[in-house]
Amino acid sequence: MARGRLVVFEGGEGAGKSTQLRRLAASLGDAGIAHRLFREPGGTPAGDRIRDLLLHRSEPLAPRTEAALFIASRAQLVAAEVVPALARGEHVLLDRFLLSTYAYQVHGRGLPEAEVCSANRMATAGLVPDLTLLLSLPPSEGLSRAGARGGADRIERADAAFHERVASAFRHFSASAWQQQHPECGVIVAIDAVGSEGDVETRLRDAITAQLPGFLTEPVRA
Amino acid sequence: MARGRLVVFEGGEGAGKSTQLRRLAASLGDAGIAHRLFREPGGTPAGDRIRDLLLHRSEPLAPRTEAALFIASRAQLVAAEVVPALARGEHVLLDRFLLSTYAYQVHGRGLPEAEVCSANRMATAGLVPDLTLLLSLPPSEGLSRAGARGGADRIERADAAFHERVASAFRHFSASAWQQQHPECGVIVAIDAVGSEGDVETRLRDAITAQLPGFLTEPVRA
Repeated sequence: MARGRLVVFEGGEGAGKSTQLRRLAASLGDAGIAHRLFREPGGTPAGDRIRDLLLHRSEPLAPRTEAALFIASRAQLVAAEVVPALARGEHVLLDRFLLSTYAYQVHGRGLPEAEVCSANRMATAGLVPDLTLLLSLPPSEGLSRAGARGGADRIERADAAFHERVASAFRHFSASAWQQQHPECGVIVAIDAVGSEGDVETRLRDAITAQLPGFLTEPVRA
Repeated sequence: MARGRLVVFEGGEGAGKSTQLRRLAASLGDAGIAHRLFREPGGTPAGDRIRDLLLHRSEPLAPRTEAALFIASRAQLVAAEVVPALARGEHVLLDRFLLSTYAYQVHGRGLPEAEVCSANRMATAGLVPDLTLLLSLPPSEGLSRAGARGGADRIERADAAFHERVASAFRHFSASAWQQQHPECGVIVAIDAVGSEGDVETRLRDAITAQLPGFLTEPVRA
């Protein structure tokens, strides 16, 4: 039986990742294509506890603590859910993955990239995404969308300079030079996230079809 | 002002680390020498939550999740407590540190040593122990001592083969070849932990005095 595909949505706060993932999951469901959708951090009982510690506790976390907790949540999600689902022939959709750790912990918090690269590789144990779609917005627009949602978490509450560094980092990850240095991240395609939900969905579906023909229309088991 | 010294006690279950650390801390206190004592995982509010997740929850954790959680707890302890205490001129005593991760997660769980080495270096951000005392017992004796305490945690409940691999690993860490390959661990001295608490304490004090003259008798600020 063929293995499912791992498709990741990445981008800064308010870029529309969650909305677009719900639309993509609904579309796969309508087509009868088996899939799972997870968000990071979380997706497992241990991961949900880690998510709470990362986002909703008031105690300060050192940057390396924060990074290691994201890695712990990711390692559990990969081992307990993602790898088994792919092996069963289901597609897996992820809301954030490796790129978010480079953006927030390296460029946002200032950790050395080599450290985070090693940690990311530890979490995934060799699993490489089949496609990462990087939703790109001007940073001011993303933060204002996220702010409009209310209930900012610990990372969303970081200062504007932090979020500018994060947004600037995301813009570089689709460059071919960066991708060549990061084979653990697989193929990364930037998608313009400005416009209506329908417009952005069309761009995403076109990119998926170009990179993974049949993903939107053919069950893996067929 | 001089920096305090970081002294680590390591060893398998039931080797007497906690008992001997309490005796050492009491002796430093009697001599008016400022010090802090922490156990891993834990020692900070975030670390205590991580400890609970690691040791007292029933949900299964993948080996890489377990390793990353130990690293998260360590990163927080180092950044929030150990480095500031050393900078204030206080000695820091640790009940487990880097060697336990090599013993339990590499030799016990089977993770690649290079991965755990990178993760350990991430947690410590360059901090190297001044001395690690490795309490050595025949593994059967250590486990029977730990078992007599009751209330085995998730790691203590692992099977006998796991604990034999861990005990065997600890026996190799004081070899000069191993130490040369692991400069992040600093100087490691094996101490025979068979015998009365007083006998073992004498051996430990002799080793500390040989490696760190004045540690037991002179306040750092003097």
